[in-house]
Amino acid sequence: MIHTRPEIIRIHPEMIHTHQTAPTQFVEANGIRFAYRRFGKKGGVPLVFNQHFTGTMDHWDPLVTDGLAARREVILFNNAGISSTSGEVPASVEEMAANAAAFIKALGLARVDVLGFSLGGLVAQALTVAEPGLVRRLVLVGTGPRGGEGMDTLTPEAQEIFGASYDEPDHLWLRVHFTRSEKSQAAGREFLKRFRLRTGNRDPEVNEKVAPAQIEAISKWGAPRDKPFEYLKSIRQPTLVINGSNDVIIYTVNSFMLQQNLPNAQLILYPDANHGSQYQYPALFVADVTRVLDAVVPFPIPKETDHA
Amino acid sequence: MIHTRPEIIRIHPEMIHTHQTAPTQFVEANGIRFAYRRFGKKGGVPLVFNQHFTGTMDHWDPLVTDGLAARREVILFNNAGISSTSGEVPASVEEMAANAAAFIKALGLARVDVLGFSLGGLVAQALTVAEPGLVRRLVLVGTGPRGGEGMDTLTPEAQEIFGASYDEPDHLWLRVHFTRSEKSQAAGREFLKRFRLRTGNRDPEVNEKVAPAQIEAISKWGAPRDKPFEYLKSIRQPTLVINGSNDVIIYTVNSFMLQQNLPNAQLILYPDANHGSQYQYPALFVADVTRVLDAVVPFPIPKETDHA
Repeated sequence: MIHTRPEIIRIHPEMIHTHQTAPTQFVEANGIRFAYRRFGKKGGVPLVFNQHFTGTMDHWDPLVTDGLAARREVILFNNAGISSTSGEVPASVEEMAANAAAFIKALGLARVDVLGFSLGGLVAQALTVAEPGLVRRLVLVGTGPRGGEGMDTLTPEAQEIFGASYDEPDHLWLRVHFTRSEKSQAAGREFLKRFRLRTGNRDPEVNEKVAPAQIEAISKWGAPRDKPFEYLKSIRQPTLVINGSNDVIIYTVNSFMLQQNLPNAQLILYPDANHGSQYQYPALFVADVTRVLDAVVPFPIPKETDHA
Repeated sequence: MIHTRPEIIRIHPEMIHTHQTAPTQFVEANGIRFAYRRFGKKGGVPLVFNQHFTGTMDHWDPLVTDGLAARREVILFNNAGISSTSGEVPASVEEMAANAAAFIKALGLARVDVLGFSLGGLVAQALTVAEPGLVRRLVLVGTGPRGGEGMDTLTPEAQEIFGASYDEPDHLWLRVHFTRSEKSQAAGREFLKRFRLRTGNRDPEVNEKVAPAQIEAISKWGAPRDKPFEYLKSIRQPTLVINGSNDVIIYTVNSFMLQQNLPNAQLILYPDANHGSQYQYPALFVADVTRVLDAVVPFPIPKETDHA
């Protein structure tokens, strides 16, 4: 049974598996047993997803993963120490990126597109800097640069939101990913249903060591420094930076700063959206990402032609 | 003979005229004889273009106007005192907007989409504030809010660029609209060819009274004030804010500020582009604008559905 929306997601015959049915597989690298799921249309450059703070493979939105899988293979995975993957969460983004690179190579892949959300976006940047030949194109969602604004620790809003208790634990995500507007909260309640659609073989929740290690890594990344954005010049890959207009977890201005300092990046900010804009506007997000990943030249200029 | 690119622009049979062939027509309102050109696919909400500092109808890019005309009527016009339109350029954006509204109503139109570029984007905002019922959706290109950064006078870069002399006068626009990169300059040279494609019935250049009056209006708009962005809350129309990453005429950060303060706006920033990003990436621009103008709901959230 496929729990998706036919008007948004076209399930191609060659797509044997979807977000809901893809089995969790395992591959060894760097002494770590990585859990991953791989599905979608084969034959092109796969898209590797890097997840947010304390998130697992189950925290992705099936409208986003299946939507993108209609035109490319998507690979979800848990990095070291997360949920069904063995090992420890390292205390730096660069070590997380090294583990991600080891995982990708262990799958026998020489070139991938990389999508990173929040902490996953930091990992995606560090991965691209360390392994520029491995990454074809980059999608940075709800994330920010080294030394970004309010990134040397969790923002006050994030501390309050992650520190509060909720009648239903999932309601945390209504505050992390969505604004307080009625429209955004309604989209959030829809997201929570989709997020629980997969019933078989769900990932275990992360253990209590994950959050402190990830916070340490985020804080090091976000610490103020001289010329914090210099490293972005080395990321020559066509990059799409996407965020909500009102991200209180990694402030939206950080997406603007990423675009301003990356040499080949487009910025898209969606209205009335918080950290999880891709879960509020999954159809727009899938269309925008697909366009940049599918384009022969993502940002084409008119060619020399004879107008005479 | 149609000087366009079949791969980008689909000329529909019902499009009798194009950017190159549309006759200049006239309509009277507010004691002003407005020059305009109107072409494209009839039947929907027309899109009214508001032009930049010292520009005329001929300064639009046929790839942009014909591209958008494939799916909607486009209306180019010269506001009061500009080129083939009679009257004087008023010394405030609000008076320019009142003239624009009078022009639109004189055409018998009760509801239009409005695109404004640079100074035209200021006029488009003021028009929407003054006549909210007249405007369905808004496209703000290379522009900024009241009291925006570096907007109380021409930026130092703009003063230098507009003050310099050029072997060929058109080369001014290579510096206004494009970055110094080789790729952007190549796109600029292509734009200059397109910009000269129309040979019949071109607009006369603006007279010497235009620039000082427009600068006075821009300076009043850009002057620092308390709570400069409050007025943006009243613009409830779905709005697309677009700019290049490196606008030195109206700094790119002003597009970010527009999006952050408009209640229902999407921001798109294109890479390695200056003030005229829509002339550097006409195909992307047409696709992005068309999507927002054509959408039943521009920024849709998933509907309530039964996932059970």
